[in-house]
Amino acid sequence: MPSFGTPTDLSPSPLAAVERLLRARGHRTPIGLHQEKTAFPPCAEPRVWERAEFGIAPHEPAPPAGVPALRERLAAVAGARRGTAVDPDRILLTAGATHAVAVVLHAILRPGDDVLILSPQWLSATGLVHAAGGVPREVPVFLELSDPATAPGFGLVPAVEAAVGPRTRAIYLNNPNNPTGHRLDAAQLAALVDLAERHDLWLIADNAYENYDFSADGFRDTATVDGADARTFAVHSCSKTYVIPGARVGYLISPPGCAETLVKRSPHTLRSVSTVAQFAAFEALSTSPGELAARRRLAADAYRLAAEALEIPHTAVAGGLSTFLDLRAYGDGEEFVRRCAEQGVGLVPGRAFGEHCAAWARLCFTAAPPQTVLEAVHRINKVYGKGAS
Amino acid sequence: MPSFGTPTDLSPSPLAAVERLLRARGHRTPIGLHQEKTAFPPCAEPRVWERAEFGIAPHEPAPPAGVPALRERLAAVAGARRGTAVDPDRILLTAGATHAVAVVLHAILRPGDDVLILSPQWLSATGLVHAAGGVPREVPVFLELSDPATAPGFGLVPAVEAAVGPRTRAIYLNNPNNPTGHRLDAAQLAALVDLAERHDLWLIADNAYENYDFSADGFRDTATVDGADARTFAVHSCSKTYVIPGARVGYLISPPGCAETLVKRSPHTLRSVSTVAQFAAFEALSTSPGELAARRRLAADAYRLAAEALEIPHTAVAGGLSTFLDLRAYGDGEEFVRRCAEQGVGLVPGRAFGEHCAAWARLCFTAAPPQTVLEAVHRINKVYGKGAS
Repeated sequence: MPSFGTPTDLSPSPLAAVERLLRARGHRTPIGLHQEKTAFPPCAEPRVWERAEFGIAPHEPAPPAGVPALRERLAAVAGARRGTAVDPDRILLTAGATHAVAVVLHAILRPGDDVLILSPQWLSATGLVHAAGGVPREVPVFLELSDPATAPGFGLVPAVEAAVGPRTRAIYLNNPNNPTGHRLDAAQLAALVDLAERHDLWLIADNAYENYDFSADGFRDTATVDGADARTFAVHSCSKTYVIPGARVGYLISPPGCAETLVKRSPHTLRSVSTVAQFAAFEALSTSPGELAARRRLAADAYRLAAEALEIPHTAVAGGLSTFLDLRAYGDGEEFVRRCAEQGVGLVPGRAFGEHCAAWARLCFTAAPPQTVLEAVHRINKVYGKGAS
Repeated sequence: MPSFGTPTDLSPSPLAAVERLLRARGHRTPIGLHQEKTAFPPCAEPRVWERAEFGIAPHEPAPPAGVPALRERLAAVAGARRGTAVDPDRILLTAGATHAVAVVLHAILRPGDDVLILSPQWLSATGLVHAAGGVPREVPVFLELSDPATAPGFGLVPAVEAAVGPRTRAIYLNNPNNPTGHRLDAAQLAALVDLAERHDLWLIADNAYENYDFSADGFRDTATVDGADARTFAVHSCSKTYVIPGARVGYLISPPGCAETLVKRSPHTLRSVSTVAQFAAFEALSTSPGELAARRRLAADAYRLAAEALEIPHTAVAGGLSTFLDLRAYGDGEEFVRRCAEQGVGLVPGRAFGEHCAAWARLCFTAAPPQTVLEAVHRINKVYGKGAS
């Protein structure tokens, strides 16, 4: 057979590897805390609907940018979040946040351009940059900022600025951060926006955890920082907020004047997002703010419960659904994850989140009900207590 | 704001342009024959289901390659079509045929590689090659083969072989062909496979119209030609066969040994196909062969009715859902489409299907019920009769 094209770094999914480990161990009651999810009920269930309700029938293909009724509802939600009206024409429906980031990267990168990734990072970020022909450059910041011992002396802007090169095109960040749960505040975001302006970079703000910011100030949309909107691609997902990860619906809010380029590019990845999936998002969006706030409190409670029980050092979580376990005293993260799998607990080795994170592992504290998470914590405490072989 | 990356040829959708024309003319009863679709009822409606029924709940994310129960059912359908068992592991679920072709192209192309496209072609084909960093090379064959005056003297293989260059990586074809309705027979497909072997090229066989082959022999899956399976990416869509284009579900059958590369690459476009969309396909797949055959006969009848009424020369249709109107005596296809839009009929200018097709236009004869299509044909006959301005 003929050969494939440019070989890119297409590592197998670390989540699939953990699932293989769990299956191989055949533990009676495995507890998967490796997936980043909640145990909350979904905000919408599939059903048939009449055309009048959504402006389109279930079997009809949606326009490339998304179903108008959904884009309007998303624009209203975004407007409320940002405190300023958002034109629905700036919104592109995507098949999840992964697809949104992929469309942005393909639009802004020339082969060999690089993207600074605030690290540790969402485990798909570097692969997406590779697949778009770019070069991912991890910039370690979140562990430094998370640690009370190092945070005061750590310069976020100097660290990022030192990584800017002639081919740098963008900075990618997710905030609150997955996997550490660290949250950049308004002043830090403003400093990053200033840096992006000085070097004329795009910002790709991954807001997957917008509903799970536990801080007193609440979620800060990067695009609302002064000057940010003109250079920020805001990536949003319905998976965590509305608990419909199976629908695979996300959306992208482009800077003013940029949406048309993205909307023209998206049909070169897929013609449009599934209409049935868009209807699920449309229904889920009518979830009350009170219900979403209640889920945020439950997630925060789940973190506190896990944190109190954990006998393993870990990052302090201000938002998001996971904490990063500090295994530097234990040794290797891979080894720890294997041992935990033997005890029927799924975690993800830290290396998946950054080259400098081999001695860490991610634990999602909302992937199971609180008592089940506690049981898992007890099991992994024992693994930690025994130390590495 | 910063600049975008490599500018690629991202032409606006010709379908959207036609819809703007139709809206601008404000005709009382517009008949849209520009979209490639049928007026048949969908083979599945959305509904809620229990996990046991599909092995996954509606809100849960599907594995990257697709839901196992659906891949197994698709493998069974493919096995029946091919007359030989197809391993479900060779099947990758995609968000429609567009996504399938995009994933293949990104996997096989290095920047600047070229793809031979048997032309006229599906209107997204050239854009997909551009977006994957490749160079599309249209090879005019279908009009030559369709015309009884030119067909006997036309050499399919010499035409394609003349276009093979040092950077050629693949041949893309859809058969039956959209927009002409021409059908390559087993001998022609075998000659193309032989050519691909000699030059070590991949074949990308777009089988979107597999259910609408009106010939006595019926649909011939390119992958079943001797030697083809090892180098053929077979692209399938549920949109036309099962009338669920809104679900956006397609699938790819990779050559033996190649599926893993494609399955690893797909999550760099989107994490997995929407679970609700996959369930729609799962249900639609239980449509009886008798019902699918009945729809094939209805589509063939719709063509005959339209062909008898058409006073415009057009391609003879052996399969697919459209015929290509020959406007060489009229003049320009764009002008003709504008005039037809004034009369409330939507067609697509031929240029969207190939650089050499400016004097043609596509008409989908199943996009409306037969009597409505007849009404449209009467209107466009009049436009044709008046000649260009």
